[in-house]
Amino acid sequence: MNYRMIGYVIGKILLVEAALMMLSLAVSVLYREPLAPFLLPMLLLAGVGLLLGGKKPRQTALYAREGLAVVALAWIALSLFGAAPFVISGDIPNFVDAFFETVSGFTTTGSTILTAVEPLSRGGLFWRSLTHWVGGMGVLVFVMAVLPMTDGHGMHLMRAEVPGPTVGKLVSRMGDSAKILYGIYLAMTAVETLLLLAGGMPLFDACIHAFGTAGTGGFSCRDLSIGAYQSPYFDVVIGIFMLLFGVNFNLYYFLLIRRFREVFRSEELRAYLLVVGAAVAAITADIVHIYGNVWTSLRHAFFQVSSIITTTGYGTVDFDLWPTFSKSVLVVLMFVGACAGSTGGGIKISRILILLKAAFSDMKKMLHPNAVSTVRLEGKPVSEKTLRGAHIYFTVYMAVFVASFLLLSLEQRGLVTTFTALTACINNIGPGLEMVGPMGNFSAFSPLSKLLLSFDMLVGRLEIFPMLLLFAPSNWRGRRNIRWASRDL
Amino acid sequence: MNYRMIGYVIGKILLVEAALMMLSLAVSVLYREPLAPFLLPMLLLAGVGLLLGGKKPRQTALYAREGLAVVALAWIALSLFGAAPFVISGDIPNFVDAFFETVSGFTTTGSTILTAVEPLSRGGLFWRSLTHWVGGMGVLVFVMAVLPMTDGHGMHLMRAEVPGPTVGKLVSRMGDSAKILYGIYLAMTAVETLLLLAGGMPLFDACIHAFGTAGTGGFSCRDLSIGAYQSPYFDVVIGIFMLLFGVNFNLYYFLLIRRFREVFRSEELRAYLLVVGAAVAAITADIVHIYGNVWTSLRHAFFQVSSIITTTGYGTVDFDLWPTFSKSVLVVLMFVGACAGSTGGGIKISRILILLKAAFSDMKKMLHPNAVSTVRLEGKPVSEKTLRGAHIYFTVYMAVFVASFLLLSLEQRGLVTTFTALTACINNIGPGLEMVGPMGNFSAFSPLSKLLLSFDMLVGRLEIFPMLLLFAPSNWRGRRNIRWASRDL
Repeated sequence: MNYRMIGYVIGKILLVEAALMMLSLAVSVLYREPLAPFLLPMLLLAGVGLLLGGKKPRQTALYAREGLAVVALAWIALSLFGAAPFVISGDIPNFVDAFFETVSGFTTTGSTILTAVEPLSRGGLFWRSLTHWVGGMGVLVFVMAVLPMTDGHGMHLMRAEVPGPTVGKLVSRMGDSAKILYGIYLAMTAVETLLLLAGGMPLFDACIHAFGTAGTGGFSCRDLSIGAYQSPYFDVVIGIFMLLFGVNFNLYYFLLIRRFREVFRSEELRAYLLVVGAAVAAITADIVHIYGNVWTSLRHAFFQVSSIITTTGYGTVDFDLWPTFSKSVLVVLMFVGACAGSTGGGIKISRILILLKAAFSDMKKMLHPNAVSTVRLEGKPVSEKTLRGAHIYFTVYMAVFVASFLLLSLEQRGLVTTFTALTACINNIGPGLEMVGPMGNFSAFSPLSKLLLSFDMLVGRLEIFPMLLLFAPSNWRGRRNIRWASRDL
Repeated sequence: MNYRMIGYVIGKILLVEAALMMLSLAVSVLYREPLAPFLLPMLLLAGVGLLLGGKKPRQTALYAREGLAVVALAWIALSLFGAAPFVISGDIPNFVDAFFETVSGFTTTGSTILTAVEPLSRGGLFWRSLTHWVGGMGVLVFVMAVLPMTDGHGMHLMRAEVPGPTVGKLVSRMGDSAKILYGIYLAMTAVETLLLLAGGMPLFDACIHAFGTAGTGGFSCRDLSIGAYQSPYFDVVIGIFMLLFGVNFNLYYFLLIRRFREVFRSEELRAYLLVVGAAVAAITADIVHIYGNVWTSLRHAFFQVSSIITTTGYGTVDFDLWPTFSKSVLVVLMFVGACAGSTGGGIKISRILILLKAAFSDMKKMLHPNAVSTVRLEGKPVSEKTLRGAHIYFTVYMAVFVASFLLLSLEQRGLVTTFTALTACINNIGPGLEMVGPMGNFSAFSPLSKLLLSFDMLVGRLEIFPMLLLFAPSNWRGRRNIRWASRDL
């Protein structure tokens, strides 16, 4: 392992976090709040950041396993330091709670241990939502976008942080790809903020909700989430923007460079819209007797489907009160998730497409052993490696899910609460059902369960492997491990 | 498709069903019950059976897809005819209900639509449990054991009916393998019956429960299942025999031919016992405050774990009243299931071992791309084909599960009832939780949901593919389909 280079990259990331805290500091200044909650962590971050990231090591190569380790360690470090402002300000005095909240922010989950968010300091609320915005597109991608870095091995970092079964560079230089992605991201966030302002939302609230939508996070500054505004306009704007941020960002780049055909032909986009359309129609029909009105039902169904499939987690109504069928549809969407290369979580549409297509192809072979059948996605054959990767991902995802489910059920809080709390965390959604429903929160869980769920949020956001492999002993040995790994299981 | 040969094999199977009904007829004679409920279906079965299976076709070859079709059609036909006695006797007047109950019997699920079983006719109860016994080891395996058949293509039939990721012949001739399996099966059933008799259980009840245990089915002749006897002796005998019938029968053959080493070294057996031991210990600790006594808690935990992991479904207590953690463990075990090549359902221990080992192996490769790592099970390398098969199985299993979950949730009966009713059916267990808990039943579901769950039971028992491919249009076309299948998806 190239420990120096790992430390160097993490040092840079901590410096970026210090810089991001400056925005929250500015908010605190504006609202005449105490500045210590941000000043102290910033000093600490700057110190540690300069210590680790001050001098570039001679050997700058980062191989796959180092890329995985950097990403996992960086996200843990960001969350540990990022929790400090909440503890110092007293917004969230307990460190485990503050850590859970910060992990939930960076991973764009949006699950909260707060019983009420409105009493929080403005600076704290801003920081809490800013973590969504940075976590959505990725911290390492951000670092690559703003700092000059060795280009050769950036791909390993990007692959470990950008969700989806495959990662395509937009342009030949990683740094340029990162800049383009963040540029599109920033522009879309700005447009949403303006639209919310135009509808009469206060600037502070508009920023908070634009950050939460862009990162598909779900933190709000209102206890009733978007439902607090009772405004169909905000429901529609945020509903549509959540959907937009759940689309693969590569498609927006294709729009920019006028490759429209690739956008309209995208299988993943079509499948995504098809699933959204079907789910909205099914839920609307199921809840129309509650709201007594097709349009209101349609609006609530659209908002909640958009919120859940993109793994944002904003709410306009308490869907825990909906009939079983509607809740079942939402629970299934929690696992489906958004498109690869978006800011959303979950298993991802393209991964599910690959898995289903491989299954169809193999079932055909059972009937016709001599038939040749290739799995294709977006017009290109899917490599055996990608296919195998999707299968292994699915296996490990389910294994982590089952293990976490058993551990969390030790809390004895009922099957639905246990199952959906975990589902909401591992898929980076936010709310689940019953105790952790849209009107509930995670405060009642024990500190150990909060740490378990924090781990699951990171597992979900980083697509499992960086987090799991962090704990593989062979990852931390020298050359010897190669011999060890070549032995059979 | 060789339609004549498919018809011929199904004809033979229907004749076997007629012969099996003779046993139930004998019970009816013994208890002086009306004979028409069995005589009429037997006449019908004999007629149709002779029509289809009377004359051997010249062309006897059965290829893979024909094997799959035979198995699926045979199981559906068996259940359709097997439901007739219940309807004629008035035990279950509604045909859909009777069909559900018969599918539940043959697939060794043990889910029931009956609110009480004790009022049923003796002949009906006997037939209901006999379907468990035949369905457990397999109807086609039975046909191969008792009738002289073309040997060459029997493997396709056996592969489609015997559960597990791979099927090994015990001896070179399929017919002999089938005879050995049924011989061991019969002997073990007889030993259990004798042990139950020795404990004072009436002969009729002992047969019913031995059938239910052997097939890992779970139908009882008592409304309170095994709990009705309030006998620790029966709990222990049935608890142990359920576990024994959940073991791969090949291991019993190895015991017979004194290849002890292979038995004690079996990874699947070890993993199975380890899971059982861990689950029993965890649940005992979780429920000891309910029963106030370690031994009583241990006995109930052991019985319920053994019942659920082997997918039998007998109960001694209402585990729906246990704490969340114990219920979670049981729900996870519902999916795990028993060993391959046993009479149990579920995903199967060996398939889970293969999936996890493949995942570990691939994660190692992420860290050490040059390391060579082969997946091995039972000391032998697992072929890429078997591995791929396990992955595809898992994908399709989850896809069928999700689709069925959404359809069943249209019943609006709560998430836990919906989820566990489906889990209990697709894994061939019997009881779930809440409405379909150990003290509940499936009677409240609509006829359409009962048919859906019948389909899922067959999907579970036949390990998905025979049932799904029955509905593939390309399965029923002539040679043309090969060209069709060679096109891309």
